[in-house]
Amino acid sequence: MTSGGTRSRENTRARLLEAAAQVFAEVGLDGATVEAVCERAGFTRGAFYSNFESKDELFLELAGTVSAERLGAVRARVAELAAAGAIAQDCDATTLVQQVMDTGSDDRLGVMLLSEIRLRALRDHAWGKAYLKQEQEMVDGIARIIDDIVATGTMTLRVESGIAARMLLVIWEGMTVRGAMAGQDEAQLRRTGSEELGRLVSLLLG
Amino acid sequence: MTSGGTRSRENTRARLLEAAAQVFAEVGLDGATVEAVCERAGFTRGAFYSNFESKDELFLELAGTVSAERLGAVRARVAELAAAGAIAQDCDATTLVQQVMDTGSDDRLGVMLLSEIRLRALRDHAWGKAYLKQEQEMVDGIARIIDDIVATGTMTLRVESGIAARMLLVIWEGMTVRGAMAGQDEAQLRRTGSEELGRLVSLLLG
Repeated sequence: MTSGGTRSRENTRARLLEAAAQVFAEVGLDGATVEAVCERAGFTRGAFYSNFESKDELFLELAGTVSAERLGAVRARVAELAAAGAIAQDCDATTLVQQVMDTGSDDRLGVMLLSEIRLRALRDHAWGKAYLKQEQEMVDGIARIIDDIVATGTMTLRVESGIAARMLLVIWEGMTVRGAMAGQDEAQLRRTGSEELGRLVSLLLG
Repeated sequence: MTSGGTRSRENTRARLLEAAAQVFAEVGLDGATVEAVCERAGFTRGAFYSNFESKDELFLELAGTVSAERLGAVRARVAELAAAGAIAQDCDATTLVQQVMDTGSDDRLGVMLLSEIRLRALRDHAWGKAYLKQEQEMVDGIARIIDDIVATGTMTLRVESGIAARMLLVIWEGMTVRGAMAGQDEAQLRRTGSEELGRLVSLLLG
């Protein structure tokens, strides 16, 4: 056990978030204590509280980190596909979405975490506001990717990018949650999500 | 306190479901005990267990009842609008959806309950299966309403009715949950849900 003193602040936060992901996967949000996260990360409670105000803040940031990583992976994949000339109005939407979404990410942790946070956000207005603010950043990020694609002139959309982004997020999340409930593995989860997203993208492209 | 002996079995179940809705609204799913539901309904535990196997079965049936009532109200409204000649391919989709969804139902209980059941369904495979089976019945019910509308020849869809029904359910639920998180009241919740549904219906109509 060490205090985080000799490590950079970012490294301490990153290790606490990594430990939080592991503890959450094992015992869920209610069961995950600050103590358990500190023990897993090898930090003192002092180190924890100099980085996060509360367990709530830690897990909301974890959810944001998981979402941001997923979004970054999708953005990189879109750039690759665009450079290869693989994005066009007449390409098969389901195949395109599969290529875009198949970034090797495991969506199970994110979906479980978001489901728990959503429930808490329904019960507690402050959490609700924080959750919606974070989600809006995700929607904005998706909208920027869509704007970039539209700007290349290879595709046109029937609605504004922000509206399309929100629909895509809600459908992807809804279908991934249902896939996880049905006991699907990672590969199946990605397939289910991509099929539904592909259908929506077809509708959005007109 | 009476045993349910002199009342009909359906009446006993209905009163237990009504009591379950009240207790759930007050203390949530974890806090709602069989004892509290029995006390509220004025029944013994014996009467409860001759109607439901467990608290889980009671609340899953409650969720199904809330969904079925909402669906029935929508079906009746669609029939009214169709009889009045108000359903046509070129009508404003958002206005149409608002008319269809504005049935006086309070969606808050259903959304809270489904959010709790979904989380449990993610953790427990048996619950997951039961939840998805019940949801599929809801999707089938929405698809039948869509089929009826399409059969009148006033509208055509760009996807199969079952696929449209699932998308509509996921978007409606996703947007209603987010509205509830934002602290919206009943009227606002219906407006938010209808706006997003209207956009999706516009896309589905082509």
